[in-house]
Amino acid sequence: MNLIILHPDELDADGRCVLTDDRAQHIRTILRAETGRTLRVGLLNGPLGTGRVEKVDRQAVFLKCEFEDNVPPKPRIDLLLAMPRPKVMKRLWAQLAALGVGRIVLLRAEKVERYYFDSHVLDPEFYTKLLIEGLQQAKCIHLPEVLIRSRFKPFVEDELDALFPKHLKLLADPSGENRLADFVPSGERSRRTVIAIGPEGGWTTYELDRLTEHGFQLVGMGSRILRSDTAVISLVSILAEYSNPL
Amino acid sequence: MNLIILHPDELDADGRCVLTDDRAQHIRTILRAETGRTLRVGLLNGPLGTGRVEKVDRQAVFLKCEFEDNVPPKPRIDLLLAMPRPKVMKRLWAQLAALGVGRIVLLRAEKVERYYFDSHVLDPEFYTKLLIEGLQQAKCIHLPEVLIRSRFKPFVEDELDALFPKHLKLLADPSGENRLADFVPSGERSRRTVIAIGPEGGWTTYELDRLTEHGFQLVGMGSRILRSDTAVISLVSILAEYSNPL
Repeated sequence: MNLIILHPDELDADGRCVLTDDRAQHIRTILRAETGRTLRVGLLNGPLGTGRVEKVDRQAVFLKCEFEDNVPPKPRIDLLLAMPRPKVMKRLWAQLAALGVGRIVLLRAEKVERYYFDSHVLDPEFYTKLLIEGLQQAKCIHLPEVLIRSRFKPFVEDELDALFPKHLKLLADPSGENRLADFVPSGERSRRTVIAIGPEGGWTTYELDRLTEHGFQLVGMGSRILRSDTAVISLVSILAEYSNPL
Repeated sequence: MNLIILHPDELDADGRCVLTDDRAQHIRTILRAETGRTLRVGLLNGPLGTGRVEKVDRQAVFLKCEFEDNVPPKPRIDLLLAMPRPKVMKRLWAQLAALGVGRIVLLRAEKVERYYFDSHVLDPEFYTKLLIEGLQQAKCIHLPEVLIRSRFKPFVEDELDALFPKHLKLLADPSGENRLADFVPSGERSRRTVIAIGPEGGWTTYELDRLTEHGFQLVGMGSRILRSDTAVISLVSILAEYSNPL
């Protein structure tokens, strides 16, 4: 936890808040913060700031916070991901938030088992906790927006264009002859990018056709076939290196 | 298992081999290969090729293999990694092999616990199995060379220069003002690169000074602080995208 993230609802009008959960535990036992110490805090989807410890006791930590004027820039990468096995998705949530993803769409595809969508890893309460854990690790405050779509066709036909109107749209597939590096020259840091990553068995021809019709361009990753969690971290990292604000 | 990797010792002079382990299991139950079917195989640190199934029974799979003339090019990335917690290292082995790392040096640093070096995850038999698992996933045949060094100073003074004689040497550290993208222009695919990645608490000033004296240049990753396994996958992926052969 390199940043204590606060929810706007937790603060009173003077910027005071009382923490009693794992953040309080962290402040007490890892940071060993005593009265008077100033900690780095951030408002969820808001500015960074500092929190002065006004009191620590066994139940709670009392902070008085002040925030900067500006909100850090948002991540410029979005992810359209064929829903991976729930076990894999569970591991990905915090890492995606830490790497800096603006929006995560989890999509059904032909080679995605239907029951993946019944998993508790798609319960907002469950994944929001993991996303915030990732943000607190990476010192970021932008909570990724999450959309879960269990039907491919209506999503692509009715929502896709509006969600990613002016994005550079890339689609990772072994058939792609260009690599990410060819699409994202180091000068072009400003354009929002969405990367589509398929299921373990790949997209079907039908799915590939629909996505390319909607403006997605194929990118390859050389001849290597990566495990799906490695592939996601790998592709998002390469894009983040080139697109995300420093 | 997207490639069946064979050890040279397993083949007779005619290219015949008998598999009885998890590869045989995979060929029987996942690939459901019957007599006559041709499978993609690779010789460890050697060429790719094909293996014709000559017989399958409950105990074994019998293959007759033929190999290409050329050995695929080696990965051009090496990794100098402060030994992470054994649990993290256990997860990294297969992923590093899959991403394509030529040499992995696991090094002691001030902020690395001494007992990490007693872990079974550093037992060659244990990690070679995981490395080959990663190679079989990624369809690669180059087994990363592994060096384990539990003393920082003698390693840096006596071995470092000889191990990485002409490499581009990069060192990931929050103090780095340049990013990887600034060092690895997309044209320069030929130069071998070694990336040094510190422990969770970072390198000490002493360690940073020694490494920079030996030619390492600092690279930053922006303001984000990543979990050490995410950081390793992320940095190696970015380098691989620019340096590794397709």
